Amino acid sequence: MAPPSDTEQRLVEAARRLWHMRSYGDVGVNEICEAADVRKGSFYHYFPGKHDLAIAVIDDHWREAYETVVLPTRADGGTPLEQLDQLVVRIGLEIRRMTEELGVVPGCPFGNLAVELSTIDPQIRDRLARLFADQQAVLKGLLDDAVAAGELAPETDTAEVAGAMNAYIEGVLALAKTANEPGLAQELLPLCRRLASPPTAVEITPA
Amino acid sequence: MAPPSDTEQRLVEAARRLWHMRSYGDVGVNEICEAADVRKGSFYHYFPGKHDLAIAVIDDHWREAYETVVLPTRADGGTPLEQLDQLVVRIGLEIRRMTEELGVVPGCPFGNLAVELSTIDPQIRDRLARLFADQQAVLKGLLDDAVAAGELAPETDTAEVAGAMNAYIEGVLALAKTANEPGLAQELLPLCRRLASPPTAVEITPA
Repeated sequence: MAPPSDTEQRLVEAARRLWHMRSYGDVGVNEICEAADVRKGSFYHYFPGKHDLAIAVIDDHWREAYETVVLPTRADGGTPLEQLDQLVVRIGLEIRRMTEELGVVPGCPFGNLAVELSTIDPQIRDRLARLFADQQAVLKGLLDDAVAAGELAPETDTAEVAGAMNAYIEGVLALAKTANEPGLAQELLPLCRRLASPPTAVEITPA
Repeated sequence: MAPPSDTEQRLVEAARRLWHMRSYGDVGVNEICEAADVRKGSFYHYFPGKHDLAIAVIDDHWREAYETVVLPTRADGGTPLEQLDQLVVRIGLEIRRMTEELGVVPGCPFGNLAVELSTIDPQIRDRLARLFADQQAVLKGLLDDAVAAGELAPETDTAEVAGAMNAYIEGVLALAKTANEPGLAQELLPLCRRLASPPTAVEITPA
């Protein structure tokens, strides 16, 4: 694929920022063109429509999230479960950084689009379902390493736990957005690790 | 408060259904009036705007969710943790029922609006933040009972765990919507219980 032109990249960055701050439905092509300082005719040279720009925005944001969250966590080293802890700490810090940059607690850029658009745009839904599968593959890789290192029980269903952890991370970011409180993400994300262990055996003491 | 008129209730039900199937931004007042068979002039007799209808929809849906999910779970009896298990089973069944009714996996009606609107409508955000606090109070009540019954360790931070469980449930419903697979909610929701227990002690065996 040819690298994006400067104009194309400006449109992607403007849309990414505006949609993340507000919502896909709330920001249209006119406003994106204005923010990117691009004429509307040029927009349609690069993108058949708003929907196609959304796919480009998702690809761009996921590449950046991978570079700023996943790769540095892997590079830090530590045991697999320590890396998992670091991963969610980095996500919490990213939410705080984005909150400062955008002036609102913006939630997960992918979760936002998935929740808003999954029932009304099958192609965007499909792109985001594949992205969530990629996120889960990162988590499953760490969990498999943790099983191999003896940090988790051999019978751990790592695919299921990775799905649960991905859901948990998305849910925490949605709640922090609703509470308008980035610290809530930083408080709750570390509990993620609990999803890897079966609950402690229940022993009922009659009252 | 006076009970809603038939016209008002028809508007609430039409908006609730259309927004849940699609999104708040995707369905406007004209379409809601048409679906409810109400003239647009009448709409503004009941609601100053779309935003005010959203508040009425949230109240209506929460009352129903409380009656169809929370109250029957309490009535079933069982130990507190058994009731917690039943609660998430009922949520999974509700998602399956709504999927059949609406023809799409619709996600959580409250999470949908919270994710779409929290950064652009402070009053709706505030209403939904209070609703999530009510959901968490239900979960905290069961967790406190579980501590009192000896099912959970006395040092359990039940407020924090209730927040984590609420986030998890919201995240699972968002993922099931994105995967377009109601069975995913039924598979993942039972893992909710794990959030109440600290992770099993880690013991690293060198490879």
